[in-house]
Formats: sequence, structure tokens, C-alpha cells
Amino acid sequence: MSAATRPPSGTRDFLPRELLARRKIMRAIESAYEAAGFLPLETPSFERIETLMGKYGDEGDQLIFRILKRGDKLSATSLLAQLDPALARTLRTSDEEPDVPQGSVVSALPAVDALLDQNLLADHALRYDLTVPFARVVAAHRNDLPKHFKRYQMQPVWRADRPQRGRFREFLQCDVDYIGTESTIAEWEVLSAGGAALQAIGFPDAACRLNDRRILLALLETTGIPEPLHGPVLIALDKLDKIGSDGVRREWTALELSAASIASLEALTLVDATSGNQEVLARLTHAFADHEGGRAGVEALREILAHDAASPTGLDLRVDLSLVRGLSYYTGPIYELQLPGFPGSVGGGGRYDGLIGMFAGTRIPAVGLSLGFERLLVLLEERGDLRDEGPTVDVYATRMHTEADPLLLQTVRRLRDAGFRVALHPDGGPLKKQLKLAAASGARVALLLGPSEVETGTITVRDLETGTQAAFSSDDLLPHLQGNA
Amino acid sequence: MSAATRPPSGTRDFLPRELLARRKIMRAIESAYEAAGFLPLETPSFERIETLMGKYGDEGDQLIFRILKRGDKLSATSLLAQLDPALARTLRTSDEEPDVPQGSVVSALPAVDALLDQNLLADHALRYDLTVPFARVVAAHRNDLPKHFKRYQMQPVWRADRPQRGRFREFLQCDVDYIGTESTIAEWEVLSAGGAALQAIGFPDAACRLNDRRILLALLETTGIPEPLHGPVLIALDKLDKIGSDGVRREWTALELSAASIASLEALTLVDATSGNQEVLARLTHAFADHEGGRAGVEALREILAHDAASPTGLDLRVDLSLVRGLSYYTGPIYELQLPGFPGSVGGGGRYDGLIGMFAGTRIPAVGLSLGFERLLVLLEERGDLRDEGPTVDVYATRMHTEADPLLLQTVRRLRDAGFRVALHPDGGPLKKQLKLAAASGARVALLLGPSEVETGTITVRDLETGTQAAFSSDDLLPHLQGNA
Repeated sequence: MSAATRPPSGTRDFLPRELLARRKIMRAIESAYEAAGFLPLETPSFERIETLMGKYGDEGDQLIFRILKRGDKLSATSLLAQLDPALARTLRTSDEEPDVPQGSVVSALPAVDALLDQNLLADHALRYDLTVPFARVVAAHRNDLPKHFKRYQMQPVWRADRPQRGRFREFLQCDVDYIGTESTIAEWEVLSAGGAALQAIGFPDAACRLNDRRILLALLETTGIPEPLHGPVLIALDKLDKIGSDGVRREWTALELSAASIASLEALTLVDATSGNQEVLARLTHAFADHEGGRAGVEALREILAHDAASPTGLDLRVDLSLVRGLSYYTGPIYELQLPGFPGSVGGGGRYDGLIGMFAGTRIPAVGLSLGFERLLVLLEERGDLRDEGPTVDVYATRMHTEADPLLLQTVRRLRDAGFRVALHPDGGPLKKQLKLAAASGARVALLLGPSEVETGTITVRDLETGTQAAFSSDDLLPHLQGNA
Repeated sequence: MSAATRPPSGTRDFLPRELLARRKIMRAIESAYEAAGFLPLETPSFERIETLMGKYGDEGDQLIFRILKRGDKLSATSLLAQLDPALARTLRTSDEEPDVPQGSVVSALPAVDALLDQNLLADHALRYDLTVPFARVVAAHRNDLPKHFKRYQMQPVWRADRPQRGRFREFLQCDVDYIGTESTIAEWEVLSAGGAALQAIGFPDAACRLNDRRILLALLETTGIPEPLHGPVLIALDKLDKIGSDGVRREWTALELSAASIASLEALTLVDATSGNQEVLARLTHAFADHEGGRAGVEALREILAHDAASPTGLDLRVDLSLVRGLSYYTGPIYELQLPGFPGSVGGGGRYDGLIGMFAGTRIPAVGLSLGFERLLVLLEERGDLRDEGPTVDVYATRMHTEADPLLLQTVRRLRDAGFRVALHPDGGPLKKQLKLAAASGARVALLLGPSEVETGTITVRDLETGTQAAFSSDDLLPHLQGNA
């Protein structure tokens, strides 16, 4: 494939076989989400740039694809007007700016750098995730939507990440979100939808790591971690499954935490991984006796576990205090989905009671879960579960003589109307070549319609496997194929 | 809706009801295309900018959404390196450029204007149509695709057009294309697919204006129109349905065509609109006796009409010599779909035997047809055929007491598994308020599960229309609802 015909770096063309397989998985997830009572919603592929900026952290901001302004908005005049006057002056002529002292050469480079500010040149940006646009829509349509609103959304998102195996710049996200309640019924609903979707596509044994942002804060506050170290301490804890307890301990020590703080943190978080959920929560209840937020977090997880015990989400829920999750907008329970034997997560989410308020003005609680479609697809492929659906053609109609065209086209139409997938050779030409294409198509039979068939009003059916042939009248053809094909 | 929560100009948010209605139409078109033997294919949302530029004419180029370069590629250093050295120098400091004479103030504005060249700042561009990306894919995968390949593609495209009623900046296209043959069987196939799709969504009476680029060229050449006037003469002819024969004649006269040329053109094109297809073609055959291209065009239309007569495309085909179509890449038959009583077209296409060769190096003939999804949707809506599918909830489960949660959640799960669409109130609280939400949801019944129900192991079903209530055991509930709901 030459460079000029390749898709852009990090993006993919989907040919029919691959697309049909993807679509089957997409529709299975869609059906599971719908059965769980979520309704579809879609947002534009791009948003105004200010809608997205500042919602994903500095790193996220850098990965946003920006769309260039157009027409007059991109003119030197219009852009200079938005620059600092002192900077802008360096780009103007001396005639227009009499106060630039004659005899000095003004360097324009700093002004050019300022001009190249991405947010000055761009007015829109490609969708980076499905949550922020959804928050905007909820704020816009608060009065048209039911108080408790469950939506699913399956659309591509774009990130200017370095492409690598399984990581793309254009990829599909499959989200469910529940807005309008602080009740943990919302968590049960989205986890149930996620569990059902995974089950539907062949992963009935997913695990779910479960934690709560309020528990993490309580851990830091009750063990006396100074506020500026909250971030670094959690970043170290988040690596537990990669670097082990010793590694986490080493990083905490490097942060110059007090020995007492480290000991307390250890006692709560770096404990035997086989501790049961209730055991971990009991320990926290004790530790958070005087920490209201921490107790609320523990109570939320207790409720989620109780709902799951009463009516299983289909996920193996495990309280895991080392789960942190990157996004800053989470406010309550957080979770991450894993598959046995597969490192990394295949989905995740959490409660974000503050985000919609950034658009709506009033606080609207919300809970979300996102499935990593591309990762799941890679897994299905590796497992050999992304079966090729076989041939896309049942019957291959050859074209032998223009005299036979009317009967040929009528026959093709009749078979298609009856549900057969019929390919029709458009050109005619040597029958041997046509039959070679027929065999390559995967069709089981070929139709032959030459002058002799026109004369007798019959159609010859050739079995492409055995090579045997038989003639049928126009009326008998369909029943014959329906019986055989 | 505040400005901050509105979608970007020319784009739309789709809430569930509207999206479900759209999706139903989309899937009907998809099914019709598949039944006609077309296979799905998808391309990335953006292409390298050079893939799209220069394919849609100057006006098209201006409407392409461009994606800003990122990181180092957007730095002053990197961009200046691509400018003309003389221009670039005006943006550098005097220190770095000792050959700029001291004592002169250099104007940087022309350099800034050059820097703002859209194709310097952008490296990618949003998909503008489905044809050019498909041509790239065909060139890339020539050896993986069957010799005769029929694909359909339904994806959004983006154009920076001025938004107006029914015209959006993000909209869906629904294309079928047939590559690999010069035979008019390809035209019969794509027109049949288009006819079937329109029929499937409720437009069984579409008409199809039919012409051929070679006929248009022959008209110009045989009537002695000088080459520089070919474009303007066709632009005038294209307006026939808007300005009438008199208007076209006036525009031709204004172009200072010879009286003889105008008379010849009139005799061939501005004739009684009731002329039958065969009559028009017979006249052209006569006129093009010495014009090979013209005769080939006439023969192609004759074949298409014959195929349609043998096996109807579902479209009312009418040879119409005033059909021109804007895109420059058409090389043979062209067509446009119309609905009775609706001005403007709802689809169109043609043969483009040269476009794929721009990517593939070798000539690969192709025929395409595109349906205007958004226009069709507006028409369906105006006709009242975009029916609201009614309530999205069958059963509304109230939440009355946490003690009843286990039975409640089990019941919700069981009903959902049985295919009922069940809403569950997440918060509890006053029953009266919950029943109000239940009624608003459109559900037919509400479930009541309080302490007394838990005690007796029953579930109360309330008919939301009549207000009557009855209690059922957990086992009897599902059969009752299946009989009633």
C-alpha cells in the first residue's frame, strides 16, 4: 500500500468482512444497553473548543484535535486583534505604527509564537470522549429530559495520541450514563448494563475493581498526608498491581512521608489481596469513625455490593483501594472492568456529580460507565471468536449473451427479493473466466443463461462444488434453490 | 438553551426519540442496499489534507474543515521553514539575520498572511464526501477486493457551508458504488439499490432524471460552441427547470453564441418536455451521427432504459438533457432522483471512470449513487411519516422501602430479561411523586413493593390508567404482565 493511499496515522479503513464483524459486536452491546433500559443519544463530532478545553487535564488538552478557523476569522487582521497590543505591534508595518522608533528592527518571532496558540487558530475541536458532550446536552435539555435519564452512546472519539498496537487516534466508545440521582441504584444500573454487554459479546466472567473517591480522600486525610502530596501518594498507590507493595512503599518513602503515615497507609491499603470485600470495608469503617466523607464512601460501596448480591450485575465486584482512575471529575464510587488473564482494563467509570453543573449551573448528579470497544475487539480476535461470517454471495449469475439480459435481470431481481445474495457478472465474456470469479465469490451455485436457455425458457444451475448442471424453468428455479441453497 | 450549551452552528444533538426514528430509516436503507448485494465499508473521519484538496473544485476546497497541526509541526521554526525565504526573513530577529540592513523596519504582515495559509497550518481534513475516501481505499486494497466490488457506506460528512433549514455542517450520506466495470449493468445495479431504498422508507414513486456527460459534450461540439463557453452554456442549461426555456435562451444570447448555435442547441434540448425517452434518444442519434462520444452516451442511456424495462429499478427514468450536475469527475451517465411535488433532488450520482485512477495509477471504472438522507428525513417528517414510536417504558417500578430492595431488584431484572422495558425509581420517597413520574414515563403499570408486600412475598401491580391494583406472587407476576401488558 503506497503512502498516498494509506489512511492517516492511527486511523483505519474497514473493509466489509471486518466491518460486519465489528458491527455484530456493536449491535450486541447496543441491544444489551437497551435491554437494561438505556436510550440512545448522539452528539456532533465536534464541539466549540471552549466546551472541551480544561475538562481532561493538561495532558488531555494536548491530545485534542482542533479544527482550524475559516475565512475572515483566520485573517491576520482578525487574529492580531486578539494578541497583546505590544506583541501585535511587532507584526505591523512602521507606517501604520508611527510610535515604533525608527531605526530599530523589531523581532516578530514572539508574536508569531503567540499567533500559533492553538486556541487562537481553532474554533472547534473533535469529540475527545462522550461524557463532556453529554454533560453539555443534559444542561441544554434539562427540561425535555426525564428526571432520571439513562442514555447510551456509541460514537467514535479522537485523540492525538501516539498510535500503537490496539491504540488508535479514532476509536469507538460505548458509554452508559445515568443522571438525576445520588442513589447507588444508579451504580447498580450502569454496572448491570456493563455486565450484560460483556456477557452478550462472550465475556461472562469479567471482574470489577471498586473504590470511591471519598474513601481515597479519607485515607489521605486520616493518615496525615499533607495536601500537596495527595496527588503523588495516589499516583504511587495506583501502581500497586505493576510494582507491588514494596514498590509503592519505596515511592511513598521517596516522597518523605512520615514513618507513621506510611505505616497507617500500609495497614489500610497494602494488605493481603485475599481480604474479602466486607473485611476491607469493616477495616475502613473503623478507621473512618471520625471522617464523614470516608464513611459515606464506605456506605456507598456496601450498598452497591448489597444490590449486586440481591440481583447480580454479572460482574465479580472486588473492593480495591489501589484503584484511583485519572480523571479529576469523579466524586464518588469509581470502578474498572477487567477480564481474567488480560492485563489492563476493558472499561471503567464512576460517579461525577459536579461535571454537568459546569454547564447547567445547578448540580446534577451522574454516574457513567464506558466499555473499551477496541480492546474487547482485539481480545475477541485473539480468542478466535471474531468469526468470519463466510461467503457474502449465495448465487453467482453469469452473463452470457445480451439477448438473455431481460430474463437474467428478472431472475436476479426475483432471487434477491426472496433473500438470496446474488452477484451478477456485469461484463459477460468467456464463461470459464466468469465461473472462476463465481468460485472465488464463495457462491454455491452459478446461473447460466445463454441463447439456448432463452430459446427453451430455462435457466441452467451449476453446482460450483461438483460441477453438475441442471436446467429449470423460470418458475421452478426459486423453489429448487430454496430447497438446496 | 444558553449559547454555551447549544451544539456548534450547523450541527445537532439527537435525543432518543429523534435518534430512534433516524436510526429506523437508516437501517431500512442499509437493509435495502444489502439486499441489492452491496457490502458495507467505512473510512476514517479525517483524511490527509492532500487526499481531499483539489477533488471538489475551488468552492468545495473552501468548505473543507481542516484540522490544525499539533506539537512541533505548529512551531514558528517548523512553519517558517516552509515559507518563501524572503518572507520568512521578515519574521526573524535582526541578530539571526545579519543581512537585514540595520535601520530598516521590516513589515511582517505579508509573512503572517502567508503563514495563515490553511494548508500550511493543517495536516488533516474532515471527510467531505464518501466518494473520494472510497477511491483511496479501492486504490489501496485493489488486490484484496473482488474485481467487481459493490459497497455501500453510510457515514457523516462535514462541510463548512452556511447553515440553513435542512442544510447542516454535519450530515449523513448514504452511498452505493460499483467499481470494476464499464458495463451499464453497474448503473442498473446502483439505480436499483437507490430505488429499493427509497421504496423501503416510503417513497415508491421517485423519478430519475438521466443524462450522460458524453452527450453534453457532444451537444456542445456538434452545435459549434467554442470550448471556453462550454462551462457557461451548461450552467445556463442546468437552470432550465428554474428559469424556463426563455430564460436559458436569454442567458445563451448573453454569452454571444451565434444564432445558428443557439438554434441547434434549442432544437436538441429546449424541446417539448413530454417527449418520450426513445424520441429524445432518436433525435440525438441523428444529431450525433459523426460524434463517437455522443453516440456512446446515447447507447449507454438506451441500455440503462432497456435493463430497467426488463427488470424495473423502481425509479421512473426520464432522459433529461438539462441535467448537468456539478462535480467535474463524472465521465458517463449521470442521474438525479426527485420526488413528486418536492423541488430539488433527494439523491444523485453518476459514472466516474477517472477518479480512482488518481490514487491507483491505473484506470478503474466506477459508478455511484448517493441518497440525501437529511432531505428525505425532512420530507418524512413533513408527511407525518416519522412516527414517534410511543413510550419507551412498559413497567415503572417504584421504590418504597430499602427492606424491599432485594425483591425489587430481582423483579426488575427478571422482567427486563423477559423483554419488558422497566424503569426503576432510584430514590424512593413519597409514593405519590413516584407515581407521577411513572405516569409521565408512559408506562402502563407501576409495581409497588413496600413492607407489607415483603411480608406477604407479593408485588402489587397498579394499572396507571385505571388506578386499579392487584397483588401477585413473584412467580405469577411475569405471566400476568405477559398476558396484559
